[in-house]
Amino acid sequence: MAIGANSAVAGPDADTLAQIREHALSGNLAFELVESLTTEVGPRLAGSEGDARAQDWAEARMKSLGFDKVWREPVEIPHWKRRHERATVLGEYAQSLHISALGHSIGTGGPIAAEVVELADLAALKAIEDDRLNGKIVFVNHRMTRAINGAGYSIAGDIRSQGPSEAAKRGAIAFVMRSAGTDSHRFPHTGNTKRLEGVHVIPSAALSNPDAEQLHRLLKRKPDLQLQLDIDVGFDGTTTTHNVIGEISGRVPGSGIVVLGAHLDSWDNGTGAVDDGAGIAITMAAAAKLIERGQRPRRSIRMIAFAAEEVGLLGAKAYAKDNAQLMERHVVGMESDFGAGSIYAIQTSARGTALDALQPLFDALAPLDIAFAEGGYGPGPDILPMRDDGVPWFALKQNGIDYFDVHHTADDTLDKIVPQALPQQVAAYALATWFMADSQIELRAPADL
Amino acid sequence: MAIGANSAVAGPDADTLAQIREHALSGNLAFELVESLTTEVGPRLAGSEGDARAQDWAEARMKSLGFDKVWREPVEIPHWKRRHERATVLGEYAQSLHISALGHSIGTGGPIAAEVVELADLAALKAIEDDRLNGKIVFVNHRMTRAINGAGYSIAGDIRSQGPSEAAKRGAIAFVMRSAGTDSHRFPHTGNTKRLEGVHVIPSAALSNPDAEQLHRLLKRKPDLQLQLDIDVGFDGTTTTHNVIGEISGRVPGSGIVVLGAHLDSWDNGTGAVDDGAGIAITMAAAAKLIERGQRPRRSIRMIAFAAEEVGLLGAKAYAKDNAQLMERHVVGMESDFGAGSIYAIQTSARGTALDALQPLFDALAPLDIAFAEGGYGPGPDILPMRDDGVPWFALKQNGIDYFDVHHTADDTLDKIVPQALPQQVAAYALATWFMADSQIELRAPADL
Repeated sequence: MAIGANSAVAGPDADTLAQIREHALSGNLAFELVESLTTEVGPRLAGSEGDARAQDWAEARMKSLGFDKVWREPVEIPHWKRRHERATVLGEYAQSLHISALGHSIGTGGPIAAEVVELADLAALKAIEDDRLNGKIVFVNHRMTRAINGAGYSIAGDIRSQGPSEAAKRGAIAFVMRSAGTDSHRFPHTGNTKRLEGVHVIPSAALSNPDAEQLHRLLKRKPDLQLQLDIDVGFDGTTTTHNVIGEISGRVPGSGIVVLGAHLDSWDNGTGAVDDGAGIAITMAAAAKLIERGQRPRRSIRMIAFAAEEVGLLGAKAYAKDNAQLMERHVVGMESDFGAGSIYAIQTSARGTALDALQPLFDALAPLDIAFAEGGYGPGPDILPMRDDGVPWFALKQNGIDYFDVHHTADDTLDKIVPQALPQQVAAYALATWFMADSQIELRAPADL
Repeated sequence: MAIGANSAVAGPDADTLAQIREHALSGNLAFELVESLTTEVGPRLAGSEGDARAQDWAEARMKSLGFDKVWREPVEIPHWKRRHERATVLGEYAQSLHISALGHSIGTGGPIAAEVVELADLAALKAIEDDRLNGKIVFVNHRMTRAINGAGYSIAGDIRSQGPSEAAKRGAIAFVMRSAGTDSHRFPHTGNTKRLEGVHVIPSAALSNPDAEQLHRLLKRKPDLQLQLDIDVGFDGTTTTHNVIGEISGRVPGSGIVVLGAHLDSWDNGTGAVDDGAGIAITMAAAAKLIERGQRPRRSIRMIAFAAEEVGLLGAKAYAKDNAQLMERHVVGMESDFGAGSIYAIQTSARGTALDALQPLFDALAPLDIAFAEGGYGPGPDILPMRDDGVPWFALKQNGIDYFDVHHTADDTLDKIVPQALPQQVAAYALATWFMADSQIELRAPADL
């Protein structure tokens, strides 16, 4: 027979999927979980005391929800801490501005002051070849655009990750940017930076959007304005955090592993409700809803609460490395890490007959108003290291129109989640997980098998 | 003739009013002014360095806009300062909460910790007659309701002004409240408190709305939770600030004074854009638009930039006291102090034939979608001391549906003002001012004349 590795009979039937969907839509375990995590733990920066409590929380919850096995895998991380951060305009227009140091920034070692050079974007910064940034504070004032899929984040995020090094290369003593965020509130958006090989690190921070506009107006009045930064943050050795993993063991050993998950760490300023308490809650609830049905899948299911995502996908990288010999048995990976908005599309790495084999899943997702969509940016960030090792992926695309209003700010708190939006997402993850777990479908291209 | 003190011919005619309206609607001087004040000065807590700069700004602007006389009148005020404020949940759910000390609070003298007693409202606090608050931190968790006229503020504001004293009387060591604000962002709303005669002052603070909800959830889990407060604020002697007054001198000396104004001071956390930079800009622009027409009114017009409103109407009280002998010549007072939303109604103290005499003004306001409305809470706060001395008032009611989202928070910044909303307000103030200034209309009841 001219079929690929898959056939329609290899997956769960439509009745089973309908039952899973209806069961997963009942109640609101996900909201209960995210309420619990964000209330009882609150902020959980990787390596912090809150992070350790979050691991205890995840392990205890996985056990009480009935996972067959629950364990932790250690992840070594640099230990970065925020103590204080202040920005002050000096001179005739003296006033404070709201800033947040960027992740992995260094401190200023007490107050430093310099003139500010305002630039429109990263290209403008990279185009500078003379010494005009020498001894100055670079200010990149790009306004992030709002989009349902967060498309504006690629430009704004690049400014954050590359800007500090590009400024340092050109002699700047510090880097500030308009926040990578779509709101107009006085919350700076923190986030990680990348260090370019061979470039020294300089203090770097984000201004809230209103503060960036204020600085812009002030610079128009006084181009030689002096900005003072007093940032006390930095590294304090290394520490150990953990991926927390809950497994529903499959009935056919060695037949494969389905991964769903989210990241357990958050930034230190908010309680990490939309980033990524929601994802933890949605995927943990999805697995729990499958456990409640009492059916054992053919393959194993792993719900992974990834460690240290915000500071460089360190938990995900450790998982892929430490489980390297298992990667070929990972049949699919998916992560919820885009807030708490409803899911409108599914994307996947599968192509050809592998994609055809997913049609019953797409049919089961349709009543949830979720449609297959081609292309896409790829899976959630913690699936990237697996993907790079050849693991197929699903991306359940959430409506992120307001995600970057609170992302990486103090304002990322439980009240930003609409409880009623969560069951649809739980049902989608439960369906996608069960479809791949209780089947023989392979999503890798035949050449990869 | 059976007429009162007024007759229709005593006021400006409809053509003049139409010309004033059209001229006041042109351009956007008000936005230019509020942009300038909030950018160049920023925060201007009464008695601060910013407050002094704001007075310089107001005086310079009044002079350049062509007022006939510009002067300052001194106002003695207690000098209150905020240094830092921290709230920390201790124990198994350890985390920080966002607070702001209330105006005129004292400090904690280092960290203090105690159990928290949550109460629904001020009535619940006042009803307590036993010693259950002794040594505790009182937490009043009332959620302010949203209303176009800010009606919810009367309940929430009473909690803020009376709560600390009521808690202190019952032995509480500190007072915290859910912010008097309608938003769901992590900005605590500060504001002034009242000290009850004979009651000692205790440290008092507002929690942001999300933080109040968080504390509520934590107390449900752990009723004996310990909350630590570390508040360093307080009084530092007295200082002098100033009302800044610009006068358009009338052509008939002694014929009366029309007052319009707003308050120049702001809280220390934001740049005071909606509270009350907008009001300063609207009323200053209204007067400036009248100056631009080159006509001298019969009566004098005073635009007053009141000092120290936020800390107890101290500038307004000083103005009424220091100008006591002029109060009977003040023919009307009006203040813009409710943000930057458009005006939908005019209210007044005038009754009977005095009210009838205002019909041409109401007709001139109608094309601006402003209608006369009976009743009302009275004029803007800085007009209250004059009103108590018998001065008639206008209240130009603004749409304040979102005013309490940012009121008294760090988020009160220029971006919250819709520039296009301002000219309508400028036109309304210009009309109301000119109508009373270039006329012989008296709004006092005949018995008062």
